[in-house]
Amino acid sequence: MDEFFNPVGVAVVGASSRPGKIGYEILRNVAEFRKDVYPVNPSAEEILGKKCYSSVSEIEGRVDLAVVAVPSEKIIGVVEDCGRKGVKGIVIISGGFREVGNAEMEREMVAIARKYGIRVIGPNCIGIYNPKNRLNTFFQKDMELPGEGNVAVLTQSGTIGIGLLENFAGKIGISKFVSYGNKADVSEIDMFEYLDRDEDTKVIAMYIESMENGRKFMDRLPDKPVVILKSGRTPLGKSAAASHTGAMATNYSIFKGAARQYGAIVADNFEEFYDITRILATQPLPGGGRVGMITNGAGPCVIASDYIYHSKNLSAPELEKEKISGLPEFAIISNPLDLTGSANAGHFLKGIEAMKKDEGIDIIMPFFVFQDAPLLDSVKELHDGLKRLVGVEDKNCKPIVAVAMGGKVVKEQARIMADYGIPLLEEPARAVASLDKIVGYAGYKGWKNEGSSS
Amino acid sequence: MDEFFNPVGVAVVGASSRPGKIGYEILRNVAEFRKDVYPVNPSAEEILGKKCYSSVSEIEGRVDLAVVAVPSEKIIGVVEDCGRKGVKGIVIISGGFREVGNAEMEREMVAIARKYGIRVIGPNCIGIYNPKNRLNTFFQKDMELPGEGNVAVLTQSGTIGIGLLENFAGKIGISKFVSYGNKADVSEIDMFEYLDRDEDTKVIAMYIESMENGRKFMDRLPDKPVVILKSGRTPLGKSAAASHTGAMATNYSIFKGAARQYGAIVADNFEEFYDITRILATQPLPGGGRVGMITNGAGPCVIASDYIYHSKNLSAPELEKEKISGLPEFAIISNPLDLTGSANAGHFLKGIEAMKKDEGIDIIMPFFVFQDAPLLDSVKELHDGLKRLVGVEDKNCKPIVAVAMGGKVVKEQARIMADYGIPLLEEPARAVASLDKIVGYAGYKGWKNEGSSS
Repeated sequence: MDEFFNPVGVAVVGASSRPGKIGYEILRNVAEFRKDVYPVNPSAEEILGKKCYSSVSEIEGRVDLAVVAVPSEKIIGVVEDCGRKGVKGIVIISGGFREVGNAEMEREMVAIARKYGIRVIGPNCIGIYNPKNRLNTFFQKDMELPGEGNVAVLTQSGTIGIGLLENFAGKIGISKFVSYGNKADVSEIDMFEYLDRDEDTKVIAMYIESMENGRKFMDRLPDKPVVILKSGRTPLGKSAAASHTGAMATNYSIFKGAARQYGAIVADNFEEFYDITRILATQPLPGGGRVGMITNGAGPCVIASDYIYHSKNLSAPELEKEKISGLPEFAIISNPLDLTGSANAGHFLKGIEAMKKDEGIDIIMPFFVFQDAPLLDSVKELHDGLKRLVGVEDKNCKPIVAVAMGGKVVKEQARIMADYGIPLLEEPARAVASLDKIVGYAGYKGWKNEGSSS
Repeated sequence: MDEFFNPVGVAVVGASSRPGKIGYEILRNVAEFRKDVYPVNPSAEEILGKKCYSSVSEIEGRVDLAVVAVPSEKIIGVVEDCGRKGVKGIVIISGGFREVGNAEMEREMVAIARKYGIRVIGPNCIGIYNPKNRLNTFFQKDMELPGEGNVAVLTQSGTIGIGLLENFAGKIGISKFVSYGNKADVSEIDMFEYLDRDEDTKVIAMYIESMENGRKFMDRLPDKPVVILKSGRTPLGKSAAASHTGAMATNYSIFKGAARQYGAIVADNFEEFYDITRILATQPLPGGGRVGMITNGAGPCVIASDYIYHSKNLSAPELEKEKISGLPEFAIISNPLDLTGSANAGHFLKGIEAMKKDEGIDIIMPFFVFQDAPLLDSVKELHDGLKRLVGVEDKNCKPIVAVAMGGKVVKEQARIMADYGIPLLEEPARAVASLDKIVGYAGYKGWKNEGSSS
């Protein structure tokens, strides 16, 4: 798969000289790549200052990867041409294949690619992104792209991929991104081994609409944490997926049961998919499900408590007063530890440190009301203190998952906290749902490891 | 209740001259009020350029409202003093009452207020906000406040109120805001009649942790749409609520059943609470549950389809090709109407207009991928067209609820669309869940009206 992420030369077939056209925007994005990029279009001399070629085989330099955006009826010719040139990988952005009934043409295209030993991503996708060398094949504009990091994203839908990347941007970095659309050749399964070996990848986030071979999929699931969002679960969703990526969908309950059994984490919706991924990307796995909440405004903790009560794996034990010292009289020590609106950064740090030491707590959840003046006025002290706390690698290393609700102030704080690796989530119910699944996964991993060592 | 929202003079008792102190921040906020504001603090001469008084009764001018932030043991004296002055309403921001075991002191305070005919909001709250005269009693800083609009917000938790207000800011305007904390005197029930008569209020959004008199609450529910988020549903949540607002919580399933029977809309979580409220604030009630989806990137529609399938009140019927004309060949007409990544604004507008006319569709859901260059390059045309469409008041008036996923580009588009009254939601599953409840409510209202006219 490395031909897709680290090619020596890249051809953009169907490059257009008209801004706004898909073939122009792809070239504009691919041109960010730090190596050789060749536009291919028989009716142009030069695009974006680059010499234009009438075919891939006409290019003098080495071409490992071709990114293709041409009408579907021209695809066979393009693949043949790439084969003659010795191209190793093709990303086909164009639609017009299986999803509109042209399954035969899609199969023929793959057969020709195989003849030449070429791997194909797509068609009907937005392709790939590797932050390390800035190679991306998107036709999107003004997109916020995340930088380098430890999350690999595999997605059948480009739109879901875009949503995830833009949510990550400025907060979570990625290792590799693949949108594979119709999966005519390369599917997520081809990526599993590659990503399991990839040192840059810690977590794999995957959006799936269809699955050709469920058993193979489960058997080859990577050892690394895998977070899956699966749609096309119902007849209506399946029918929508069929006209989207031409996919046959699988039975959702069977899928979900199997995925859990094989250790994957299945998210219920997009926000959970995003939240679970960013917690796993930044936090250690919890040693249990006992949550310690601390706050300067208790409403969201009441909501969280309701969800913890109904969760599978979480609890919120009463905090012991003797384990928490140095807090002012107005603090109400139960669970949550309610510091009230008068709390400043110092109070939060004392409470969080106490929870780090408390053997009765596995996960620390601070709920911040950043809009409260006493906290906002001391917020730099809060960040300095938290940075110190997460910098200490010790046996008391516990996940910290913060929650805050609101607008601009909260978004700004979320970016600052992301810099030193604490995720700030937007909603208490979402935070609890995500942690519940992560604790379930940690239990599974523990159980599996114990099992295999015995 | 009008003494709280339109007072002639306001005293801030416990005003502080030290920035960051709660008593300072409240005064700074109240000072935005367009009428007379008097700081009260026996040990200061002047705060924020205003003459300081040693007691409320010492103020020469008329004082309708006192906003109080003093230690709880001083509250009785302050209320007596307000009574002597002829104050009509008191907002007590301070905590230290029932929520920490001082229920007796709280009862005594209310008894004294009643003796003088004073109504009390709080204690242990953030008070009120009336955008019309800019009066707000918050101790928050740098908060984004929404402008004038048609949503009244009632909340037991200040933090949840802040979260809602900041999410509304720039998108949804409000009519009145009350955070009532411990509800020692004024509760949501006191607000119902006031808000039902209030011409500025179209929708009432309410966050509740406890309820003293469920029957009275239900009997007096306003006729206007009421959206309720209820927490303290479980033993754990109840215990968290008890140390938060000193509240005894009610049985959630009984509450939920009764609320539905009386026509209230019960949200499951904060995001649904926010989404249902903003749809009701801006859109007409749907005439049925048949959803027409249109998109330039189908992934989110596949997710939405799964949720529509499992919904109570929604369906996504196949769109009829003959009802949709003028679309390019690449458009895939099913449901969703998939315009693919090549779609521009004109294609979207043609599809949406066709759905407006289509008698088989009750709700129009456009799913926009704004990051796709062909749409982004024509986005002004999209907004101009949508503005025209929502400006036409006709019998084809149908709710339009849009969805888009991503970062900055999406947030900017959300603000632009909010200006002409179309809500842009962040997640397909959330959008479907909210619409499902709104259609259920519309059905209830229809049934009720039919019943009462016979």
